Formats: sequence, C-alpha cells, structure tokens
Amino acid sequence: MAKQVVTPWEVQGDIDYGKLIKQFGVQPLDRIPDFFKEHVLFRRQFTFAHRDVGIVFDAIKKKEPFAMMTGMMPTGKFHIGHMMVAQQIIAYQKLGAKIYITVADVEAYQSRGIPFSEGRKTAIEEYIKNYIALGLSPKNCDLYFQSERSTDAKKSNAYYRLQNELARHATFNEFKAVYGDITPGKMFAATLQAADMLHAQLLPFEGPIPTIVPVGIDQDPHLRLARDLMKRLKTHKFKALTSSYHRFLPGLGGGKMSSSDPTSFIALTDDAKTVKNKINKYAFSGGRATLEEHRKKGGDPHVDVAYQYLTLFEEDDKKLSQIHDDYVSGKLLSGEMKALAIEKINTFLAKHQTAYAKTDTMLAKFGL
Amino acid sequence: MAKQVVTPWEVQGDIDYGKLIKQFGVQPLDRIPDFFKEHVLFRRQFTFAHRDVGIVFDAIKKKEPFAMMTGMMPTGKFHIGHMMVAQQIIAYQKLGAKIYITVADVEAYQSRGIPFSEGRKTAIEEYIKNYIALGLSPKNCDLYFQSERSTDAKKSNAYYRLQNELARHATFNEFKAVYGDITPGKMFAATLQAADMLHAQLLPFEGPIPTIVPVGIDQDPHLRLARDLMKRLKTHKFKALTSSYHRFLPGLGGGKMSSSDPTSFIALTDDAKTVKNKINKYAFSGGRATLEEHRKKGGDPHVDVAYQYLTLFEEDDKKLSQIHDDYVSGKLLSGEMKALAIEKINTFLAKHQTAYAKTDTMLAKFGL
Repeated sequence: MAKQVVTPWEVQGDIDYGKLIKQFGVQPLDRIPDFFKEHVLFRRQFTFAHRDVGIVFDAIKKKEPFAMMTGMMPTGKFHIGHMMVAQQIIAYQKLGAKIYITVADVEAYQSRGIPFSEGRKTAIEEYIKNYIALGLSPKNCDLYFQSERSTDAKKSNAYYRLQNELARHATFNEFKAVYGDITPGKMFAATLQAADMLHAQLLPFEGPIPTIVPVGIDQDPHLRLARDLMKRLKTHKFKALTSSYHRFLPGLGGGKMSSSDPTSFIALTDDAKTVKNKINKYAFSGGRATLEEHRKKGGDPHVDVAYQYLTLFEEDDKKLSQIHDDYVSGKLLSGEMKALAIEKINTFLAKHQTAYAKTDTMLAKFGL
Repeated sequence: MAKQVVTPWEVQGDIDYGKLIKQFGVQPLDRIPDFFKEHVLFRRQFTFAHRDVGIVFDAIKKKEPFAMMTGMMPTGKFHIGHMMVAQQIIAYQKLGAKIYITVADVEAYQSRGIPFSEGRKTAIEEYIKNYIALGLSPKNCDLYFQSERSTDAKKSNAYYRLQNELARHATFNEFKAVYGDITPGKMFAATLQAADMLHAQLLPFEGPIPTIVPVGIDQDPHLRLARDLMKRLKTHKFKALTSSYHRFLPGLGGGKMSSSDPTSFIALTDDAKTVKNKINKYAFSGGRATLEEHRKKGGDPHVDVAYQYLTLFEEDDKKLSQIHDDYVSGKLLSGEMKALAIEKINTFLAKHQTAYAKTDTMLAKFGL
C-alpha cells in the first residue's frame, strides 16, 4: 500500500479513515440525527468525522440559529468531488443554517498567484452557477469574495480587522502546522481563512452563533488554528466553531481527484459522451482479470470507482445494495457496473446542465 | 559618545545625521523650494533628508495632484515632538496635498496589545484634536482608523485587499529588516503600514499619484519595504512613493523624547506652571558650571535643550540668531535661555489650548 499522506497541501496514498481520525484527533461521526439521513452523503457516511458537531445538531433540533461556513478555491473545473461540498451546504441551508460561502480568491492569489479577475470568473462560471443549479438558494446566504467582503463597509471592516486581530495571537509554528513551509503570503491566507470561519459570529453579522464548517479532513489544521486563536481573543465572545469531515471521492484512476488532471474527474459540465468515455477508459475497476474468474470470485466494490460513484448518484438504498451484492457474487460484470454508473451520472448531469443553463438570471440575487 | 542606534524599534545614543544619511542610503535635503521656507521646520532643516522628494516638489510647482500620507500611534500624550509631524501635514495641506492620515490602532494592538477602544480615545483626545487646533482642515483630508478604513465599502475592501496582496510579495527577511525579531502580528502591522502608504494610489481613492510620507528617519525601513513591494505588484500601477525625514526633537534631558516618560517631554496640554517647572528642572543646559566661566567661555546652544526648543518656537530668524550669538558669547545665561523658552512655549500653548478647547465641534467634519 502506498504511504498515506494527508495534509492541507498534499493528499496521497491509500486513505485509512480510521487512522485519519486518530491522526487528526477528531471524532468519528457514527450517530447521525434523522434529519440528516435524507441525503446519501450523510446516510452513507461520506461525512465520517467531526469536531463538536453535536452542538450544531442540538441547535438544529431546538430550532436555534446556527451558521454554516465553507469556501471554494476558484481554480479548475467544478467536478463531482466539489459537488459533495455543495450538497452539504444545501442540506444545511434546508435545515435553517445561515450560510456563509467564501470565494478564496485572496488565498488563490497568495498561494498560487491567480489574479483576482481570473478567480472571479472561475468562481462564478464553475462554482457558483453549479451551486445554484444544485439547489443553493439566495435566502440566508452570504456569498462573498475574500478580496471584497461586502458592500456594507461595517462588515468589510469587521472581517479584515478580525484577520489582523487573529494574527496577533498566532505563532509561526502554528502556521507551519497548516502549510508546512510557510511564506508571508501563506500566513496571510491562513489567517484570512480563520477570519472566514469566525467572522459570522461578529456583531455586524450574526453575533455569537454556533458554526459548522464542512470540509475535507485534509483541511483540519485550518480548523485547529481557528479554534485555537478564537480562544485567545479577549475582545470577542465566540460560540462553538465545529466541523465535519467528508471522505475524498476517488479520482477515476482510484487515486486523488485532481482539478488539474481531467482524466481524474468528471466535471459537472462534461457531456454524456465525455462521461461515457472517461468512465470506460479511466475508471479503475474492481473486477477480475477474466470473465471466468469474475463469475467465480466476484468483484470488489470497495475499490471499484464506478461503484463508488454510484454510492453518490444512486439514491435508492435497495438498488445500491443489490448492485453491491451482485458485484460481489460475480453476477454483475465490471463493464455492466460502468454502464450503470454512466447511466446514473448522465441522467443526473442532463438535468443538472439544464438547471445550470438557467442560473445566469439568479446571479443578481446573490449580489453578483 | 553613546553608541548611535536608530531602528524602528529603538532610538538611542548621540545622533549623527550625516552618518544616518549614509547608513539609511537616503539623500540629504539641502535644497528646499521657496514655498517651503515659510515654516521653520523646513527653513531650519528639521527635515534633513529624503527619498525622491523632488518628484513631489515638482508636482507642487506644476500644481499637479499629489498625496501626503502619515500616521499616528495612538498611545501616550501628544507632545512637541509629535507636533513636528502635525506641522508638516498642515504645511503639505496648504500646498494642495490630498491628506491621508491613519490612526495605527491595528499596529498598536498587534505590537503593544492596546485595545481598539482605548486607541480610539487616545487618537481623538491626544492626537486628532491637537492636529485640528494646530490648523488641520477637513478639506481634502481622509483621516481614518486602520481597524475601520472607511464608511465606503469599496474603499475598505481595496485597502485591506492591498495589505493581503503586498504580503504575497514580501519575504521574512524584509520584515526582519523592519522589526528585528518578528512575530506574525508585527508582520501584519508592517504590511498594513505598507498598504497605508500606497493605497491612496488605488482607484477608489486618488488613483496613481505621487505620494510623500514625512516621518522620522527611524521609520525608513517601513518606507523601503513599501517601495520594494510596490514594484513587485503587477496588478497596480503606482507613481512614486517618496519620503522626507525629520530630526528627533531632543527630550528635556537631552536624550530621546519618550511618550512614556513625562519628564522627557512637554505635552501640548501641559499648563504654564508645568512647562516652567519641567524646563527649569529637567531641561539639559549648554551653560557653564559657574557664572564666571559662562561669561568667559559662553554656552553651547547645540546641546542646550531650551535653545533647541526655541529653534522650533521662535519663528523670527533674527531674534533666534541674536539669542544664539548672545549665548555663545556668554552674554545670555543658561537661566535666561530657559526663561526665553518658557515664555515662547507658554505663549504658544496658551493660544493652542484655547483652540483645542473648541475642537469638539470640528470632529464631525472629520467623520468622527
């Protein structure tokens, strides 16, 4: 097995989620409230770990206000891995969260040199329009760019001031824990990200309010930094900053899904033919080498990428279970598994792309 | 002679301005345009060195737009050393500059832990009201707090975004050159100060415009940092960032004038009796040990603090020259020199304090 490396700047190797839970010191998310089970992401434990998420679950149960904050790095194509974040956002929105979504264009500039104009275009065309097509509503949704926090000066001032305040209480070692090798630019990015997570709790925004940040486990060092810094700020009272961590959706080849490698992902703008070709050509199969062997020993759904994608796209638990069992028994062949995935994904994408085409008129409602 | 140390975090020893010019690599300011000679600060070369100030002098001659930017650290009492900065601001304002003045409350928080509320109070009561009493006009004057840049969100966003952009192009060594030992907080302070110096040239403000920053020579590393970083930002076109450097007004004891030591300074709110006591008790004298020796050998105005203060408060060149010569010849005694300084300063302060008492109604015109 390839050595497991999971840091905010690198994810590689075979991922052992049990090990990650220990390594990061987070809690397994094994008991999920009923209101979450509607969506496969939660029902099927894509979201597998957390910090203090019970506080937010309690708020939901008691119908008390809470905030959900997360962000997008405006680079590359919006793919089905990104979709998992969008779906969580929308799930929390339906549960009554005040939604805060940042376009991390300052971080994209600081860590990758991406100009703001390019970041803005990518954010809108690739991310935001897909979010809207997936069901994000402008209601209770504050979607903003790090480089231009708000059209309300009080809000802008409070946000950036918080970044500067948090910096005073940070140490160089803490930034190293987030980024490994640090540069001044990366330090500013990490601090602005801490401000992103915490500023919903300032008075020009919601005021103190429990906040949940759904992210990939590789982003946990950012959470730890923000959670540590918030305790040192004597000038603000914060309620809990909680987080939930979702699994990495495997790339087509079975490794990491990477925005910079189109053969590793399915984009939400891919057409039906592209999806079919990508899955047939690149999707790592858990099937056996020969038809005979497959019929006899059965396939391995755990490593079969087409099956893994079905766990996200086939919402019917019974059907999915049948597919699983048929694969294990050898009744379902690898090519048939791929065909099922292609059909499910393309059905989804056809509907999604119709919705995407209508999102232009919605942008203004998000202040864009 | 005590060893000369002049850095942004420490000023001590006997100051040799010729040496400082070489050490910092700045230019001596020996040719001053006529329009500057009105004020003793320029006529008597309190402002002794510069970087590229000719560019701003040219703009003044051609009546082209230019900006003046400087700041205040909101701690301690406003004393006659601080007054020299205020007088330069006002001189530039009269020459047509767009005035930018920052209250460095974020830096005060980051480097000294001063809460924003305390910084705000000190800035208004000690600094801003004295600036106004000295003649600062709200016309063409943008006075702001680092923690709350503007009531115009476009301006706030542009200012803080610039801080983050500049950070990307800075190195750790550059911050060390400004602060010696660095902390994350100090790095943020240095970067925000660079944004202070440069943001007048952004579009929501003046657009590209030559800018002069009048400061003490100890602050030159901040200027160098801002000048270096501005060249690396491909996204903005900046015109010249120039600077002028003024001498340190000696403290009463002859050393550094320090806000934290009331026996070292005369505050602009000191009453006549306090001024008299402070000068008589603490002002270092250039007179001789005995009356006889003084009459014979004469005093040394160069080290006589009362005389040094008169160079700031006695505007009549002929009178000052006579005082100088009479002291050197032994005709004027040390106590008489002190009496002259006390009289001049108290006359000035009486008028100033009357003006100060009326500044409350002016604050609103500065957006306060």
